[in-house]
Amino acid sequence: MKKKRTNISDIAKAVQVTPSTVSRALNGGGKVSEKKKQEIISLAKKLGYRPNPIAKSLLENRTNTIGLIIPEFTHHFYSRMLAGIESITSNSGYQLLICTSNEDQSQEIKSIYTLLDARVDGVIATISKVNDTFGHLQEVMDNDTPLVLVDRFSEEIEAPYVISDDFQGAFSAVDHLCQIGCRKIVHIKGPDNLSTTFNRLMGYKEALRKHEIEWEEDLVLEGSNPDLEEQIKSCLETNLVDGAFAYSDYLAFEIYKVASQLKIHIPDQLAVIGYADEPISTYITPTLSTVNQQPFEMGAKAAQILLNQIENPEIPREFVSLPTELIIRKSIR
Amino acid sequence: MKKKRTNISDIAKAVQVTPSTVSRALNGGGKVSEKKKQEIISLAKKLGYRPNPIAKSLLENRTNTIGLIIPEFTHHFYSRMLAGIESITSNSGYQLLICTSNEDQSQEIKSIYTLLDARVDGVIATISKVNDTFGHLQEVMDNDTPLVLVDRFSEEIEAPYVISDDFQGAFSAVDHLCQIGCRKIVHIKGPDNLSTTFNRLMGYKEALRKHEIEWEEDLVLEGSNPDLEEQIKSCLETNLVDGAFAYSDYLAFEIYKVASQLKIHIPDQLAVIGYADEPISTYITPTLSTVNQQPFEMGAKAAQILLNQIENPEIPREFVSLPTELIIRKSIR
Repeated sequence: MKKKRTNISDIAKAVQVTPSTVSRALNGGGKVSEKKKQEIISLAKKLGYRPNPIAKSLLENRTNTIGLIIPEFTHHFYSRMLAGIESITSNSGYQLLICTSNEDQSQEIKSIYTLLDARVDGVIATISKVNDTFGHLQEVMDNDTPLVLVDRFSEEIEAPYVISDDFQGAFSAVDHLCQIGCRKIVHIKGPDNLSTTFNRLMGYKEALRKHEIEWEEDLVLEGSNPDLEEQIKSCLETNLVDGAFAYSDYLAFEIYKVASQLKIHIPDQLAVIGYADEPISTYITPTLSTVNQQPFEMGAKAAQILLNQIENPEIPREFVSLPTELIIRKSIR
Repeated sequence: MKKKRTNISDIAKAVQVTPSTVSRALNGGGKVSEKKKQEIISLAKKLGYRPNPIAKSLLENRTNTIGLIIPEFTHHFYSRMLAGIESITSNSGYQLLICTSNEDQSQEIKSIYTLLDARVDGVIATISKVNDTFGHLQEVMDNDTPLVLVDRFSEEIEAPYVISDDFQGAFSAVDHLCQIGCRKIVHIKGPDNLSTTFNRLMGYKEALRKHEIEWEEDLVLEGSNPDLEEQIKSCLETNLVDGAFAYSDYLAFEIYKVASQLKIHIPDQLAVIGYADEPISTYITPTLSTVNQQPFEMGAKAAQILLNQIENPEIPREFVSLPTELIIRKSIR
């Protein structure tokens, strides 16, 4: 059994006043003699009195906490997004309670209920890779708890969104490869079921179309394929590939690995662009060109929208798509 | 105002039975006709009824949540530690509520109270870099909420600990450098006030002592120094440094940077060992030798100890120090 918390009645008994006098002394308002007030405050301090959070939150209907659900922390993207969220929430006196879904929807659902049970004032979430049901997210909003979804979009759930312009990000990368003369550009795709995967593939195709290069099925590889290394190898060997655009920096590193095995020189024979600007990209040789998604700004914007919704639930839902930035490093001539 | 939750009375009214009948139908136990039971269950489902978590947790005095406080997520170390914790907690039906302190003690204190207010069943925490007060951690234990501290140790607070054997980790690294013939070994120190910084420095000194090499103050640099790059440069230029041991892989990369500027070849002229085995270490050229701290195992062990304490508060406090593993890569001949 947990130790009983000191409550207002304990203090009232000890100082021989009524509980409501203690409450007035601690919260201000009403008449209490200055001497009694000091006595009550000092005793409350000594006994480690803190207002009962449940009683307090029932009264105010606020806990000043915000729930955050993200897939994982191994990608730098999410720690930058977290930093952006914190830059807004901590200034506004909100505490974050974070849950990770590990890209598993059943874990995401459990996390949602844990956060609702903790009575968070709002939720920011990135939906997990596997996503085929959205009732738990709808329930958050039905419970009148503001919700903002970040990074990944689904047509299945109407909510405020803050995403990155993945189409434009991919388009600018592949457009650049075409401009420097690449004609055979391989694309390594992201996980199925994600809007980011779909939009980056569309951006890739659209840039090829702009440069009148026909799209070839053989040049689009599945990043999740367990034989990815073999696939890249056979693709680089069979086709005269001169450019590569990967869904993520980590997938671009797979291309680096195979190119090194096949003695294909980056950037002289093969120009490579990744996605997400992971810090590793500046450490690897040659440094990797990539697309910056502004994860800090995404997090900050999502937090701003959420806090606005908490203050004023009636404001219309926003859909924000942030621009990306193409970063050219030594993996491009 | 949040929408009112469906409660047992709402269901009871709708089905025209007593609330206690509804409770029995939903929780089992006592007599309820099968037909009524099905009617109640289906209505509860339809109305989105979930047991009131506060009433439920007051009853059971359990929320099946565990609070986790860590400094940040940019270091891979903490996401591996988190994975280790989750490997234990999720199998046991516990949900994690994570807070980040950003190495700021006031944030750490707020997080502790947020987690206590959320009525977590236990807390796992890594104390922040700046740490000069420990009352909030003591309060967790005084509140009969089990606490386990990980990674960083302080004599100021008696609690169960799971740490890594930093002394041995540093000793084995510097011992190896001496064995391959290094005689002038620079050490870049970690942040002040951390047990990890102190113990790695001690391990460094002890390995030198073993090889009868005198410790030189000039060869120990402060990692937090804003002029670190200049300091490394002047140290490498003035002394005939042939080895380097850094508090972290990121600090080792600073040595890489300066060595490249000064055209000092790694590993031929300078052997380098970092600490923590960040994934970047295998991508950088030459790949970095480092000390693996087993963060996954640390997290898993901490979670095991915490769950044991939750089940049986009377078991004695454990102090676990996990062994490290020296990983030799191409930064060493």
